[in-house]
Amino acid sequence: MPVVKGPQVFPRWEYLRRLAAVKARMAERETVAAVITDNAHITYLTGSVAHSYDTRAVVVLASREEPVFILRWMDIAAAVQETFIDRDSIIGYSEELMGDPDNNGYDAVIDFLLEQGLGQGSIGLELCNLTVDSAEKFKGRLLQARIHDFSHVVTRIRTLKSDLEIAVMREAAAISDAGVLTAAEVMRPGMREADAIAEIVGTLARGANGKPGTWIATPFLCATSRIGNPHTTWSEDTLREGSQVNLEIAGVRHDYHAPICRTYSLGKPSDRLLRIHEAQLAGLEAGLNVIRAGAISGEVARIIHKTTEKHGFKKQSRAGYSIGIDWMEKTTSLKLGDTTVLEPNMTFHLHLGSWVEEDFGYVLSESIRITETGVEVLTKAPRQLFMLD
Amino acid sequence: MPVVKGPQVFPRWEYLRRLAAVKARMAERETVAAVITDNAHITYLTGSVAHSYDTRAVVVLASREEPVFILRWMDIAAAVQETFIDRDSIIGYSEELMGDPDNNGYDAVIDFLLEQGLGQGSIGLELCNLTVDSAEKFKGRLLQARIHDFSHVVTRIRTLKSDLEIAVMREAAAISDAGVLTAAEVMRPGMREADAIAEIVGTLARGANGKPGTWIATPFLCATSRIGNPHTTWSEDTLREGSQVNLEIAGVRHDYHAPICRTYSLGKPSDRLLRIHEAQLAGLEAGLNVIRAGAISGEVARIIHKTTEKHGFKKQSRAGYSIGIDWMEKTTSLKLGDTTVLEPNMTFHLHLGSWVEEDFGYVLSESIRITETGVEVLTKAPRQLFMLD
Repeated sequence: MPVVKGPQVFPRWEYLRRLAAVKARMAERETVAAVITDNAHITYLTGSVAHSYDTRAVVVLASREEPVFILRWMDIAAAVQETFIDRDSIIGYSEELMGDPDNNGYDAVIDFLLEQGLGQGSIGLELCNLTVDSAEKFKGRLLQARIHDFSHVVTRIRTLKSDLEIAVMREAAAISDAGVLTAAEVMRPGMREADAIAEIVGTLARGANGKPGTWIATPFLCATSRIGNPHTTWSEDTLREGSQVNLEIAGVRHDYHAPICRTYSLGKPSDRLLRIHEAQLAGLEAGLNVIRAGAISGEVARIIHKTTEKHGFKKQSRAGYSIGIDWMEKTTSLKLGDTTVLEPNMTFHLHLGSWVEEDFGYVLSESIRITETGVEVLTKAPRQLFMLD
Repeated sequence: MPVVKGPQVFPRWEYLRRLAAVKARMAERETVAAVITDNAHITYLTGSVAHSYDTRAVVVLASREEPVFILRWMDIAAAVQETFIDRDSIIGYSEELMGDPDNNGYDAVIDFLLEQGLGQGSIGLELCNLTVDSAEKFKGRLLQARIHDFSHVVTRIRTLKSDLEIAVMREAAAISDAGVLTAAEVMRPGMREADAIAEIVGTLARGANGKPGTWIATPFLCATSRIGNPHTTWSEDTLREGSQVNLEIAGVRHDYHAPICRTYSLGKPSDRLLRIHEAQLAGLEAGLNVIRAGAISGEVARIIHKTTEKHGFKKQSRAGYSIGIDWMEKTTSLKLGDTTVLEPNMTFHLHLGSWVEEDFGYVLSESIRITETGVEVLTKAPRQLFMLD
């Protein structure tokens, strides 16, 4: 039997608002169709959170209110259930396009554009997201079309959150907080790192305040010899008396991520550890003090860097980045020299983490929202170096 | 302090064997350098399992035994610890390349090639993995080089596993089995899907036989109204008396995945459910009976399709695909018309799953290894429709 629509995360008008912003950018170049292929953008414009690894595209047409969602036939039911899009605008391509070296789902997208008589119009492609062979497929089959680069357009629109999105990010942040506290409760000398991860990801799934996590973002648990780098996950080692653990996790609601970092010391912390905590805490607070709508991103970064340096630690990496669907948004960084003017409802991972030597680093961060007059810290776990016995 | 090498998953000669296979393919086109950018390929050739989202590349040089690993400076320590590669062959690029619209880590790769005097040689790029702007960066800065497509070369080499890799995949499969049994133990009417996921991913982290999971692959728990499609994850719903749950999970060891699917009925199953289980079970067993080295992939698929059809269910999707690092290998499918000759130590996800109507589907699968005389089923969970009260 055909499925019916399930509960939607956002009302229809929220998606239409997002699409209107895309169409406004399309109009600037008389674009008749924008082909959206980035998974985070597809989620943003439709509500789809199913995770298919197969080719999918959302085609935004200047002439139609709703976009058209083109995906593998077996994913139609999920698209009907999860998205606001009418069933007639969801097109499945056949199994024959799977595992075919010469054809794939993008052929179905091109077929659709040609059927719609758009083969001679101005078409936007997210070239920053398309591989060479996919881009050539579009160019080769749409010889009469004026193809132009639509990269980063949707990412930039995503940067400014609606109040509805902020509400979801608050839910995600509460899950992040719960994960931080679970880590503090369970991590003890003698515990395998994997067993700590089991408890932490369990919390990330169970969620907080009756709202379950809807995804398990990769947790980074860098312990002992691995605290000098940010991107190892957990290992097969066991936590020991004296171990330090740098934890970076993100609660997730409907693909919106709210990352947080906290550091734990199993036993008495070293002087160096206490000093770097003080330095990062001071830098974080200095940042929070100057962040507000109208502030310049690079200037915020400068104040943070200056503060940690005054405390004896030179931070080498940027002080944060824009967040939302699928963790990071590749738009604004809180980075020296960045000239972005902060606006209300931009959201950032304000990240003080420093990896100062190959075998030593410390992490402290919050997910934040820019407000008219300052900042709302979305994550609310105790802002401390956790000392566990 | 500088870090030192940690325990390696595989001995150095295993990586040199893999590199020798790559170099043999390079020699066919007098390739002086192959630039490997696919994350699974990087893991395969180096042992790196850290998950950085920043640009990384492994450069395999015809003239050198070890490859060169180029990555963001803060990831150097992890590369030293995790990989067999000498510290001198690990090159970090500076923070300035982060968040710069015009330059990125590939500029560091190109700088390296030019410094090595390779700017006029034959260079292989994985074009199927490079976005348009990255490919153009290589072409634009290496004007004298003869750039050719190195896509799929490493994937094809990965298809044939060594006995060392098979041993790791057996460990992963045991974790998959444990996850299937955890689901059977905990799922009951009244339980939130998210709470079931919490228990399942906990098991995937804790692992089996003293070997922890080293990654949480996305679990797919499609229940009740979502059993007609394969790629939704869990939802905010609660399991009910009469619910059906289609579960697809994968235990992971050192990025090697061993996926498995099982279906659960909370309460008395319908006749249709019992019949599709019988059909898929018969199809799976028919497949296992004919799979051996020398069999043709498409012929195996034909026998599976014929068997399920005889039992009244037409399977529309392929009957499996090659597996290894990062779940799926985009090489061979067990698919009608596929002419691949199966070889010993190829590994597949033999997947009987069918989504026969928008609101109905069933899943049953195993991770398998091809042997000289038949097949080794890596996953060993009871091959049944789990009926839970």
